[in-house]
Order: sequence, then structure tokens, then C-alpha cells
Amino acid sequence: MAFPGYGAAPGGVAQQDPLYGYFSAVAGQDGQISADELQSCLTHSGISGSYKPFSLETCRLMISMLDRDMSNSLGFAEFKDLWQVLNGWKMTFASYDRDRSGTVEGQELQHAVASMGYNLSPQTMNIIMKRFSSLGRITFDDFVSCCVKLRALTDQFQRRDTTRNGNASFQYDDFIQVTMAI
Amino acid sequence: MAFPGYGAAPGGVAQQDPLYGYFSAVAGQDGQISADELQSCLTHSGISGSYKPFSLETCRLMISMLDRDMSNSLGFAEFKDLWQVLNGWKMTFASYDRDRSGTVEGQELQHAVASMGYNLSPQTMNIIMKRFSSLGRITFDDFVSCCVKLRALTDQFQRRDTTRNGNASFQYDDFIQVTMAI
Repeated sequence: MAFPGYGAAPGGVAQQDPLYGYFSAVAGQDGQISADELQSCLTHSGISGSYKPFSLETCRLMISMLDRDMSNSLGFAEFKDLWQVLNGWKMTFASYDRDRSGTVEGQELQHAVASMGYNLSPQTMNIIMKRFSSLGRITFDDFVSCCVKLRALTDQFQRRDTTRNGNASFQYDDFIQVTMAI
Repeated sequence: MAFPGYGAAPGGVAQQDPLYGYFSAVAGQDGQISADELQSCLTHSGISGSYKPFSLETCRLMISMLDRDMSNSLGFAEFKDLWQVLNGWKMTFASYDRDRSGTVEGQELQHAVASMGYNLSPQTMNIIMKRFSSLGRITFDDFVSCCVKLRALTDQFQRRDTTRNGNASFQYDDFIQVTMAI
């Protein structure tokens, strides 16, 4: 017989979280979700709203950004972090997509990136804009893919820029590991 | 009246090239193809053979790898270079996909990468393998995406490793430019 009022079942707190429903519906017994499970989970959660669901490629990027244990999958805590970050990006994207067309212009991506505090040259901004757009427009999926990469690469750079002078040195293997993972 | 036998029409040499048919069918008047045109062009050319056609994301990567003038599109000369490189990768992939399932295993990707001369640690190999596989298998599209990134990033690294000691230094803006472009 269980003793009501004493403690909580394992995962009890998580189970009260509305997000846990989306997560547990796809997570295997190991409590982790892979890129394709994340794609299905985010699609069902409706986080993309009226925007197209996330591509598998973007879901893989999301996992690389948050996957601290290099398992190539996310636990529930990491999934919750991701959810929060995605909602912030969605609000930013929506604030530029004023006509609700589902896409923003290249110039608007540049403003959004600058508004997030990234200090980049016009040339770099231009390259990013071209890289993530199709026929000059950027979808929400492209935008999130851009934000994920920018955040993860900046984070990796800063870890190596120990003197905080905007310069970092990489060994070849380390460079490939950091940049291929994203 | 034209003088037969004197010179060639502009683009005459290219027009005799069987590849030019695939290229010109999608290239605009500027003689350049964008990522979505490249996707259509490669699909029609049948280069993927029995493999799934390339994703738009992989086509974007191919363009970043070869796009020397930062136009985000390819001219015919760059397209021919790409064609040659892709055929090499297809042969490599096919040599590992012995059962013609259309996918190879993670371990086989590692062997393929090593056979191309990349000297990477087991940890980096493992990260690459996980990043480019779905449920432990790698499609031809994933494989090409991996090869494109590895080649372009190694090339960028080597340009900055001026003393050839396997170490390169990056300013933040340069690091983001190089890594976000790929």
C-alpha cells in the first residue's frame, strides 16, 4: 500500500508540467528524445503556430546546441530549456513578420540578429542572411536554424577566448569537432 | 550571314558539354544557379542514382563550398567542379553501401572519412558520425552534407594555419563568418 502524502512518484513533478505530455509521448524508456522524436514532439506541441513545422535538420541542430552529455538526444530538463529558448525566438520572429506571411526579409534577419546582441560586421551579416534565405526570404525554420548555430558557435568561441579579447585559437581536431557538431 | 567555321558562339564549348543541358535548363539569364535550382538540376541529372535526391539544405552547403564570389549561386564552371566532386563521393559511398540499401552505418562513415585523408581523433569521428546519422544510419544526402562541410571547414582552417602546425587563430567575426557560411 502506498502512503498518500509522502513524497512523490519518480518524475512526479515533471508529470504535472504540461510540457511533459508532449515529451513523454515520444520519449523512449530511457527518457531521452532523438532528433526525429523531437521533430514529432515539437510538431504536436504546436510551437510553430501557423509556421511550417521544424525540419529534421533544424531539430538535429537544436539537439547539438543543448546536448551536454554528447548523447545526441535530449532529456526532459534540456527539452524544457529548448522550449523556453524557442518561444523567445518565435516572439522575435513574429515581431518582424508583421504581415504574418510566415517569412521575413533578409534585412529583418540582420536586425533580429543585432537585437539579440551579436556584434557582427556588415559582411558577416550579409553572408548569414544569404546562407539562411531562399529567394530572399527567411522562414521560421531557417531563422531558428540560424539562431541555434549562432548561439552554439558563439558559446564555443567564448570558451576558448579566455582573455576575452575577441580572439581564439583552435587545434585542427578541436575546430572540426566544434564546427561539425553544429 | 554567319561565317561557318569561324569561331564559336558564346558558350559554344559549354553547349557541347552534356552537363550543360542540365545546367542551362535551370540557370537564369545570368548563367547562375541558386540552391533550389541546383536541387532541381541535380535531381534531373540523376546523379543520386537510386539514392534519394539531395535536400535543399545539402544543396545550400554545396553552393557555400564552391561559391568563390560570395554570390550564393554557381556558374557553369563551378557546377562542373561540383559534379566531379559529387561523383567521387558517390563512388566512395557506394563502395560502403554494399547491400544497396541506400544507407551506410556510422562505422562505415568513419572509415570513409579516414580514407579521404582526414586525420581526426576517435572522439571527433564519433561526433561526426552521430551528427550525420538518423537511427544509426547515414543516407547519401547526409554523407554528402558531411563531406561538403568537412572539406570546406578544413580548407578555411588551413588558410589560417599559416605555419602548418595544426593550430589556427580566429577573430570572433571571422570565426562566425567562416562557420555560419557552411
